[in-house]
Amino acid sequence: MPKKIVIIGGVACGPKAASRARRRDPDAEITIIERGQAVSYAGCGLPYFISGVVPQVDDLMKTGYGVLRDAAYFDRVKKIRILARHEAVAIDRAARTVTVRNLADNTDLAVPYDLLVLATGSAPVRPPFPGIDLKNVVTLRRPDEAGALRGFIDAGIERVALIGAGRVGLEVAEAMSNQGVETVIIDVANQVLPGSLDPDMARLVEQSLRAEKVSLFLGEKVTGFVGEGGVVTKVLTDQREFAVGAVLVGVGVRPEIALAKAAGIEIGVTGAIRVDEYFRTSDPNIFAGGDCSESRSIVTGRPAYIPLGSTANRQGRTIGDNLTGHPVAFPGVVGTGIMRTLGTNIASTGITETQARALGLDVITCLSPSGDRSHFYPGGKNIVIKLVAEKTGRLLGAQIVGPGDVARRIDTVAATLTLRGTIDDLGDMDLAYAPPFGSAIEAVSHAANILRNKRDGLASAVSPAEFFALLKTGATDFFVLDVRTAGELVKSGQVEDPRMINIPIEELRGRVGELPAGKRPLIVCGVGQRAYEAQRFLQTAGFADAAFVEGGWNILARFK
Amino acid sequence: MPKKIVIIGGVACGPKAASRARRRDPDAEITIIERGQAVSYAGCGLPYFISGVVPQVDDLMKTGYGVLRDAAYFDRVKKIRILARHEAVAIDRAARTVTVRNLADNTDLAVPYDLLVLATGSAPVRPPFPGIDLKNVVTLRRPDEAGALRGFIDAGIERVALIGAGRVGLEVAEAMSNQGVETVIIDVANQVLPGSLDPDMARLVEQSLRAEKVSLFLGEKVTGFVGEGGVVTKVLTDQREFAVGAVLVGVGVRPEIALAKAAGIEIGVTGAIRVDEYFRTSDPNIFAGGDCSESRSIVTGRPAYIPLGSTANRQGRTIGDNLTGHPVAFPGVVGTGIMRTLGTNIASTGITETQARALGLDVITCLSPSGDRSHFYPGGKNIVIKLVAEKTGRLLGAQIVGPGDVARRIDTVAATLTLRGTIDDLGDMDLAYAPPFGSAIEAVSHAANILRNKRDGLASAVSPAEFFALLKTGATDFFVLDVRTAGELVKSGQVEDPRMINIPIEELRGRVGELPAGKRPLIVCGVGQRAYEAQRFLQTAGFADAAFVEGGWNILARFK
Repeated sequence: MPKKIVIIGGVACGPKAASRARRRDPDAEITIIERGQAVSYAGCGLPYFISGVVPQVDDLMKTGYGVLRDAAYFDRVKKIRILARHEAVAIDRAARTVTVRNLADNTDLAVPYDLLVLATGSAPVRPPFPGIDLKNVVTLRRPDEAGALRGFIDAGIERVALIGAGRVGLEVAEAMSNQGVETVIIDVANQVLPGSLDPDMARLVEQSLRAEKVSLFLGEKVTGFVGEGGVVTKVLTDQREFAVGAVLVGVGVRPEIALAKAAGIEIGVTGAIRVDEYFRTSDPNIFAGGDCSESRSIVTGRPAYIPLGSTANRQGRTIGDNLTGHPVAFPGVVGTGIMRTLGTNIASTGITETQARALGLDVITCLSPSGDRSHFYPGGKNIVIKLVAEKTGRLLGAQIVGPGDVARRIDTVAATLTLRGTIDDLGDMDLAYAPPFGSAIEAVSHAANILRNKRDGLASAVSPAEFFALLKTGATDFFVLDVRTAGELVKSGQVEDPRMINIPIEELRGRVGELPAGKRPLIVCGVGQRAYEAQRFLQTAGFADAAFVEGGWNILARFK
Repeated sequence: MPKKIVIIGGVACGPKAASRARRRDPDAEITIIERGQAVSYAGCGLPYFISGVVPQVDDLMKTGYGVLRDAAYFDRVKKIRILARHEAVAIDRAARTVTVRNLADNTDLAVPYDLLVLATGSAPVRPPFPGIDLKNVVTLRRPDEAGALRGFIDAGIERVALIGAGRVGLEVAEAMSNQGVETVIIDVANQVLPGSLDPDMARLVEQSLRAEKVSLFLGEKVTGFVGEGGVVTKVLTDQREFAVGAVLVGVGVRPEIALAKAAGIEIGVTGAIRVDEYFRTSDPNIFAGGDCSESRSIVTGRPAYIPLGSTANRQGRTIGDNLTGHPVAFPGVVGTGIMRTLGTNIASTGITETQARALGLDVITCLSPSGDRSHFYPGGKNIVIKLVAEKTGRLLGAQIVGPGDVARRIDTVAATLTLRGTIDDLGDMDLAYAPPFGSAIEAVSHAANILRNKRDGLASAVSPAEFFALLKTGATDFFVLDVRTAGELVKSGQVEDPRMINIPIEELRGRVGELPAGKRPLIVCGVGQRAYEAQRFLQTAGFADAAFVEGGWNILARFK
């Protein structure tokens, strides 16, 4: 008897598991049950359909050679049956059947299985704001919702409010803003992307969004929506109101676990379905993967809920193996993500400083601006790298922000995290160098070297936030030593402050006598390198407590 | 007494070691001896000065903030003494002195050391071709040589011959060709870049160079140069002659070891100075690093000679630690390189298939074309990835070629190699995904998955070379099944051959009866994915020996 494999969910993990299972087992009867009409679509591409970069929403459902991946395609090419517009409403684990409702005519059928896969995905959170059900208040998950947002642009709305400064909000901000729609982002958190960026790195994103005329209202609570004729016209917050033509609510997703829960499948500590490394749920005949299930973090060793299309695809492949008698363990995730918003690339992997400290880890970090080409090679773009590590040297995570090439650097760190590497591994790593591609000591290696210098007691730094906080105190037990050239000072200005002294590093050894004895030097330069060099010198010249300001004016100028 | 550190060589490793030592030890007396006038310059940037991308050669000797790194700079900023235009002519290891000749006046001085660093670099090989000393026959190592090449362009020469299809040759080909100089590359080897690319990947580079109107003469031996009035006018080979205005000889470098050898320092099996993981030579008071010394390959565990500026810089840092009483072991190199020539990016890491087979390893490889963005996201560019692994799954190397983003992918593999990862690690790796940056299953992970499928007996492939060889035999015990759509066939053609059958994969299950029973199907598609899918199906439909052609028409079209 051929094995009956039933998969609930037809977007990412489900079709991947089904396709892999088919390549492993030519005889299995494979059925995918999908509530929606569209199957196997690239949900991550929806913001680019909204922006018009991807002309047709169907483009997100096509193969690389242009054929639509619909139910007929799966049947013809892969002998996989897809029941689209069918919803799984109950699982009878004892009888091993799924009750499936045909949404066209509301009839139910019982679909028997030998092995079942829950790939039910996640759903956008819809907070119970007054007015949430008004017209033109949407979430973004499905192609039809992307169509609605595209429609707002085509209809010429003037202003959109994006509730939530997470990934969806920032990607749609780019789409809307590029189409000339005034974009207002509101978030109750004090920063953008709190799950993946620390506040210092978030600040860089916020500054670049504001430079692109996106209005950001952080630390501000939405209290409701007001409409006219059933259509939203205003967003109310605890501080003000906005006249709007549409609202996108993008405050996160939650795993679709109702079906699993009702069937008595175990839910994990993250609120998603718990699975083992073979993606087996608490029922050995039922697997789960994708956004409805939790992952294990390779970095923390703990369960993590990180719903991403890339993870869902990777998991689907392994589930396909395990469904067909080829046990393959999945190593877990490190938590890598990347996105772009209005010319700023944002990537992160591992855990943030905030998350590491919450775990009680003894943490060191660095903040390192770099070009993404050799400094003498024209056309290079800035990136800022923050690395997070334990004092032992174990790498914990990275965040990289800027107009430059962040993908290369984040993947290098992700690979290092996956294989449990250290800052020493990353610092000495034999990465690719030629002037059009980077520096002789690659940007992530340079950042790792800063951490090694901190760990080894060579580098002593204050963060940009600490620097400004110290300036504000009015204390006079320190002075600020700017070691840039006169030309650089003119170009990018400096803080007007009586505690500020400018001596270019080229003159410092000769003019060290001019420095006020007994006071602590806080040294600044362009990106931190010269200031570190000066710190090493001053510590041996009577200023043992000298420290450099991390990231230099490259960061400070954006923090002001 | 402050420690006397003397460093011979002032380009990359030397200044880095000196600077690091200074940051570690404020009191050491640090002296760099450099034969040339220029110190601390970015040799890898010279091709971009030739092309005019970098306007002034001094730009390669400046800091990121525009200050020239000359002897005065090192003295003022780092208290490092540089003796430029001074040549170390002998080492007295017993007395611990270096005899140094002032090249301005030919006087000698004795420089005493406690610790000595040999960072003497490498020199271009100058084969004893008749006419090698004619004017306008140059090598490329120093800024003045780059100036000569730039001068040829400015003087309006019409044609240049580049002897050697290695990195220097291909980078200068770009510089010359972009400036309108007709460029002829001649190499005795049958392929470009034999040290870092296998013949199949080299073919892709050769095809793209030819498309850019660079003339390539491979497997052709230069026999000499002919001049008029002392200036080169012709290159002679064993097959023809070329009228030229200038010649660049770029046939590799050899380590500068004469000084070390004369002092009785041990030379390693690679012909470069042997060092331990702390960069100590056979004399415990003498270190060596950079192009004059050999590295240990993390991949093979053997000594390797891979002279690169990036490696020299990384080594210099660690040497600076070890010079100052902070023992730090260096992990070795994996052998990563990247370059660009006329719109084609070329990167490699680890060892090639050729090298792996020479080591007697049981090797599997894959050839995988990918876009560097999601297929639905416009503007993506092609890359082709070749991975090399042991049948055990241990990763050995990667080669990546194409106009797309190769840097990101090569560094991911380099990190994996550094930490001794497997194809399973790479396949399941949590790499960054968003449509503007790549695919949900990242290109290197996809390539790793092909290798896993081969290892696990799922995928059965023939290489493009094997495919064309089979076609040529005239054998009729196989047929070629092209599973692309009719539209694709029209776009990119196909081999005209009576053994060719076209059935789009969408129709294959329904039309399998049309296939000639008892013959072996060789299946082709666009990049190999559909053909693999078809192979899995056909193997269960009576064609157990079905195989897909790796890389599909994406590669085949360039091999024809």
